[in-house]
Amino acid sequence: MRILLTNDDGIYAPGLRALRAELLKLGTVTVVAPATEQSAAGHSVTLLTPLLVNEVYEDDATTFIGWAVEGRPADCVKLALLELLEEPPDVIISGMNAGSNAGINVLYSGTVAAAIEGAFYRHTAIAVSLEYDKKIFDFHTGAKYGRQVIEQILAHNPPPGSLFNVNIPVLELGPIRGVKVLPQNVSPYTEKFDRRVNPRGRTYFWTSPDFTCPDPHPDTDVTALIESYITVTPLQFDLTNHARMEEIKKWEWKTE
Amino acid sequence: MRILLTNDDGIYAPGLRALRAELLKLGTVTVVAPATEQSAAGHSVTLLTPLLVNEVYEDDATTFIGWAVEGRPADCVKLALLELLEEPPDVIISGMNAGSNAGINVLYSGTVAAAIEGAFYRHTAIAVSLEYDKKIFDFHTGAKYGRQVIEQILAHNPPPGSLFNVNIPVLELGPIRGVKVLPQNVSPYTEKFDRRVNPRGRTYFWTSPDFTCPDPHPDTDVTALIESYITVTPLQFDLTNHARMEEIKKWEWKTE
Repeated sequence: MRILLTNDDGIYAPGLRALRAELLKLGTVTVVAPATEQSAAGHSVTLLTPLLVNEVYEDDATTFIGWAVEGRPADCVKLALLELLEEPPDVIISGMNAGSNAGINVLYSGTVAAAIEGAFYRHTAIAVSLEYDKKIFDFHTGAKYGRQVIEQILAHNPPPGSLFNVNIPVLELGPIRGVKVLPQNVSPYTEKFDRRVNPRGRTYFWTSPDFTCPDPHPDTDVTALIESYITVTPLQFDLTNHARMEEIKKWEWKTE
Repeated sequence: MRILLTNDDGIYAPGLRALRAELLKLGTVTVVAPATEQSAAGHSVTLLTPLLVNEVYEDDATTFIGWAVEGRPADCVKLALLELLEEPPDVIISGMNAGSNAGINVLYSGTVAAAIEGAFYRHTAIAVSLEYDKKIFDFHTGAKYGRQVIEQILAHNPPPGSLFNVNIPVLELGPIRGVKVLPQNVSPYTEKFDRRVNPRGRTYFWTSPDFTCPDPHPDTDVTALIESYITVTPLQFDLTNHARMEEIKKWEWKTE
């Protein structure tokens, strides 16, 4: 099996290295990932600047890992499919991200966007993220679970363009309780900014790390992660609100 | 009516200025928009660097327009709602973008992401984009159509969090044929890169402007725009593939 591995934390991130080690048990792995951290890059792509690439090797300087791209996660997937890979991959894996990508974070996530980009090209793509508590990550165990879930998804031969979002709960709080297939939570988050003034009198803001979902819907990715379940959410990229189409079609429209 | 106006082309973009002029006919308009072009920013947000803001005035130096933010379109909406606006807006408008945001471009679009961010906060939000031919834009006429569609949407008092994607066709090819409510096209695009080598021997790639949809589904935003219709697509931000949930729930899952 040919696996394309990418992420948004950058090609040197420990989560990617841990997941790569596990994925090597399943087949050949080629990494095409951002040269630098691209957290919360969403589905941004690079139009205005060139995408520089560099070959990356293991510490032995001879084992080829893949390419570092000075661009966004979605750029990496495009470049891999159109230019860098000699043969198309059988599956695209994105991660393992340091921090979960659940709820509306799915839309901010560069990890998920890279998987969506793969699905644009009708590849099966799986995003894998690991939740944390106090910035402690057991990437090794998280990657083992990630690989097991990936294997079980692929065992069902999902049709081309299938897209999955896998989140692994905090592993330091006790044993995981199993795997749940659940929808993305869509309830609001609360957040705030830290307002400051620079020495020249100009106002600026820092995004606060307090980005929390006070009222998640039950039986969603967000709630199950809190309850120590691994979550699997099948995704799609049609943003049409089909439920409201018929009503809105009946509205009167005119232009002058 | 209090209108928050943002975009992804930047606060000095002609599309924003043209739409602001039209929206002033509907109420008070406060602009909170990126200081620089953020095309294809997707739903990226700024976590690692501070968001500097500057007040912006009309050429008379006394009429306040709003704030320029050194960040992403979605950052602008967050900052506006949480810090900058004295009162919550009645509607959030994003645009008018130079270039349509239809098909899978909806996911790359910073213009649409800004509207989605507004919907996260349960505001009604409308993205407006103008298609072009040979880089000629009639922003003045496009903004007039945009304002008319916005008025007709708001006349129906859509519930909080309602989200719309409005695209205006190329105006230089003849009169528009009307307004159609249609889903987002989800069929693949073809694209390519221009591979080059820099004077130091390093490979780099430019994204090619040939990003086209060879086989759009009929009766979608992409096809109707080609046929000179204004398109209105109600959007949502739940990426769950609900159609596949039941099947995937039945799969066997285990972890070791």
